[in-house]
Amino acid sequence: MKYPKGSKKVIRSTTSNEKIATYGNRGMDLEKEINETNQYYLEKDIAVIYKKPTPIKVVKMANTKTQQGIIKEAFFEMPSTTDYNGIYKLKYIDFEAKETLSETSFPLNNIHQHQIDHIRRIHHHGGICFLIVRFKKLNLTYLLFAKDFLHFIDENKRKSIPLEYFKIKGHLIKDKFLPRVDYLSIIDQEGCNYDAVEKD
Amino acid sequence: MKYPKGSKKVIRSTTSNEKIATYGNRGMDLEKEINETNQYYLEKDIAVIYKKPTPIKVVKMANTKTQQGIIKEAFFEMPSTTDYNGIYKLKYIDFEAKETLSETSFPLNNIHQHQIDHIRRIHHHGGICFLIVRFKKLNLTYLLFAKDFLHFIDENKRKSIPLEYFKIKGHLIKDKFLPRVDYLSIIDQEGCNYDAVEKD
Repeated sequence: MKYPKGSKKVIRSTTSNEKIATYGNRGMDLEKEINETNQYYLEKDIAVIYKKPTPIKVVKMANTKTQQGIIKEAFFEMPSTTDYNGIYKLKYIDFEAKETLSETSFPLNNIHQHQIDHIRRIHHHGGICFLIVRFKKLNLTYLLFAKDFLHFIDENKRKSIPLEYFKIKGHLIKDKFLPRVDYLSIIDQEGCNYDAVEKD
Repeated sequence: MKYPKGSKKVIRSTTSNEKIATYGNRGMDLEKEINETNQYYLEKDIAVIYKKPTPIKVVKMANTKTQQGIIKEAFFEMPSTTDYNGIYKLKYIDFEAKETLSETSFPLNNIHQHQIDHIRRIHHHGGICFLIVRFKKLNLTYLLFAKDFLHFIDENKRKSIPLEYFKIKGHLIKDKFLPRVDYLSIIDQEGCNYDAVEKD
């Protein structure tokens, strides 16, 4: 599935030297790596977590018999929730994954208001909710729990979350061969604390 | 969002007298009623449950600047999971909703193999998983837990589940004004038993 805006934007915003460096380091895209990770969790019977399809508004269907069922005009819509959800150790899991080219902070315009509202609701209902944020140029991937994400946006008027905040409050997800982005290992480490935090 | 096959099929398979009767009785479609119910649960802060978008395979994007971001050719894809999931009282909720015009049984070709595999996984991982099946002409809507659904398909070679099975093993969801399809009331009634059942 190809998004209207995406990797192209990345290429445009870098010089050609940077482009090569970025390409050299970047390996697969975060989304692809997380999908592979989820597939691994599924096959090993560890968790059942899927990326939701991107919502699409269909404007026109083909009207000839030979083309029946073919969509002839449609738009990508803004999702009202995060991209990933599922079940792990009886718990509801819910998260959003984003990459940034910035080396200093994660721009908050990456997460729109509907998604913030959703994250707040899931956190309030006791789901395990978080962001996975990759600083591509630094090759650093952090998990930031909803609690810490919401705390930041409620207490700050900044339009981006500094890398420093991820270093202090986030959890580094180390690169692995299999699974690629082993975010459930962070949940395992933090799981007991997480329950306690929920009752705050 | 308009599906390539759907309500049209319903109309085609009835005579015109039947059509009027069906239209008279049917009220809203089940999907629409469930979406409204989920919206009610969300607004009342009872649960956070969404329908997943229908997966679409994009074949061609518009290539002119004025039409940037417009999908020019795409297909609906077979979903690999059920349509609805979310969180209720700290539990992972997962279900599929289907209507049938049959007055005697629910045809199993309504649920494809990927979905059965998914239902089995969620049940195994301890999620609250079920089908909501509406017999439109009878104006009866049942909730059938994964345990009972899987028991039927594992023990039978029949290509449909008889209405009688829903009457015995299913749970009738009574029509209400608000919310329309109050399926969580069944979870509340059966919740305690459900946990016990999980440990079978």
